[in-house]
Amino acid sequence: MTEIPASNAVDDPSEGPVAFQDPGYRAAVVDLLGAIAYGEISAFERLAEDAKLAPTLADKLALAKMATIQFAHVEPLIARMAELGSEPMDAMAPFVKPFDSFHAKTAPSNWLEGLIKAFVGDGLASDFYREVAAFLDADTRTLIVTSLSDAGHSDFVVERVGQAIAEDPRVAGPLALWGRRLMGEALSQAQRVAAERDSLAALLAGGVDRPGLDLVALGRMFNRLTENHAARMAELGLAS
Amino acid sequence: MTEIPASNAVDDPSEGPVAFQDPGYRAAVVDLLGAIAYGEISAFERLAEDAKLAPTLADKLALAKMATIQFAHVEPLIARMAELGSEPMDAMAPFVKPFDSFHAKTAPSNWLEGLIKAFVGDGLASDFYREVAAFLDADTRTLIVTSLSDAGHSDFVVERVGQAIAEDPRVAGPLALWGRRLMGEALSQAQRVAAERDSLAALLAGGVDRPGLDLVALGRMFNRLTENHAARMAELGLAS
Repeated sequence: MTEIPASNAVDDPSEGPVAFQDPGYRAAVVDLLGAIAYGEISAFERLAEDAKLAPTLADKLALAKMATIQFAHVEPLIARMAELGSEPMDAMAPFVKPFDSFHAKTAPSNWLEGLIKAFVGDGLASDFYREVAAFLDADTRTLIVTSLSDAGHSDFVVERVGQAIAEDPRVAGPLALWGRRLMGEALSQAQRVAAERDSLAALLAGGVDRPGLDLVALGRMFNRLTENHAARMAELGLAS
Repeated sequence: MTEIPASNAVDDPSEGPVAFQDPGYRAAVVDLLGAIAYGEISAFERLAEDAKLAPTLADKLALAKMATIQFAHVEPLIARMAELGSEPMDAMAPFVKPFDSFHAKTAPSNWLEGLIKAFVGDGLASDFYREVAAFLDADTRTLIVTSLSDAGHSDFVVERVGQAIAEDPRVAGPLALWGRRLMGEALSQAQRVAAERDSLAALLAGGVDRPGLDLVALGRMFNRLTENHAARMAELGLAS
């Protein structure tokens, strides 16, 4: 691989090119993009599948539309992985099993469970990747933040779930438990991935020219993720 | 509903406005758009579902992408139904059962069957709606032809099926039978729809200022559909 001359450096030479000269950093970014891309593909699949549970044609359309917005994020991620010199399908491969396991273990049994899963799962993934993106070069960060833009879940889900609870307050209890189960399964898959993918763990730990997270900072990040999850559940009118 | 003054007439006054002054024509166009729109929604659902059968991640991506292209056609159709003064969800409702029945009766049992169904089903629907569009006002015709543009099925399917037959010629026999079954089920659902929706039958029969099809012309149209189906099967390397 040829070295990028300084004159061709991207906008912020203190970040981009320097960071990418470290093959470990490059590998970690590809890993992260692979995880996000396959996450979006599997979210697409689940939303399209859950659309079948929709009580009305309008609801089905709304969910199918979210699915297609989610899918539209995949191509720029794939293009970037290729630019970084990796084969995108190979880069996504390690994440197929963790995401598929997560979805298999959290298959919604009704329409409301599907909606909550879309909202809570998407929110959690988005929070996590944004936290990680803060440690990356500017280009990668922008790409990630763009691909995590809300696919329109929030308003629709909050409105539909709120309406269902207003109509029958007894649904709130089981749905609150469901939210807790989603969080638990997500954390358990995330831990497995972190344990298997050294590059991602190294990314969070930082490098010579990049700040990283010590254990205290990691703990704080975990707290932020949990608090945001609780805030989302509260927005749905559900205990967390 | 207020009459459209001649001065506000759209581009071709000999077609658009005159035709739409006939409430029967308007109802028929809404029916047709409803059928096409729900057809695209259900095609989206089936492609997203069939993507699960994909042997590789790249194949899964290709099918998911076709699904999203198909879905992108739905919004302009919905907007047009609303412009014509009808509630799009109501307009699509009569077509939910025929399309869902078709898909339930032709659920592919493997990846190649799914590919052939996407190619053959999409081609047949496209041919049929194009034939009908020839009898419509220019605006409606353009909208329909645009929403039937190939979602990228053809090249991908022809290549993948050709490859599979080259690797194992024995798959060709069952796949040829599958193609015949798809055609049979499609015709049987189409006949049911035509029998139940007088407006669509009236559309094909023509009006005072619109040419229509007599029985001989209908027979010819049916022949063209069958011939095109045979040509598509041949393109796949399959008997029809």
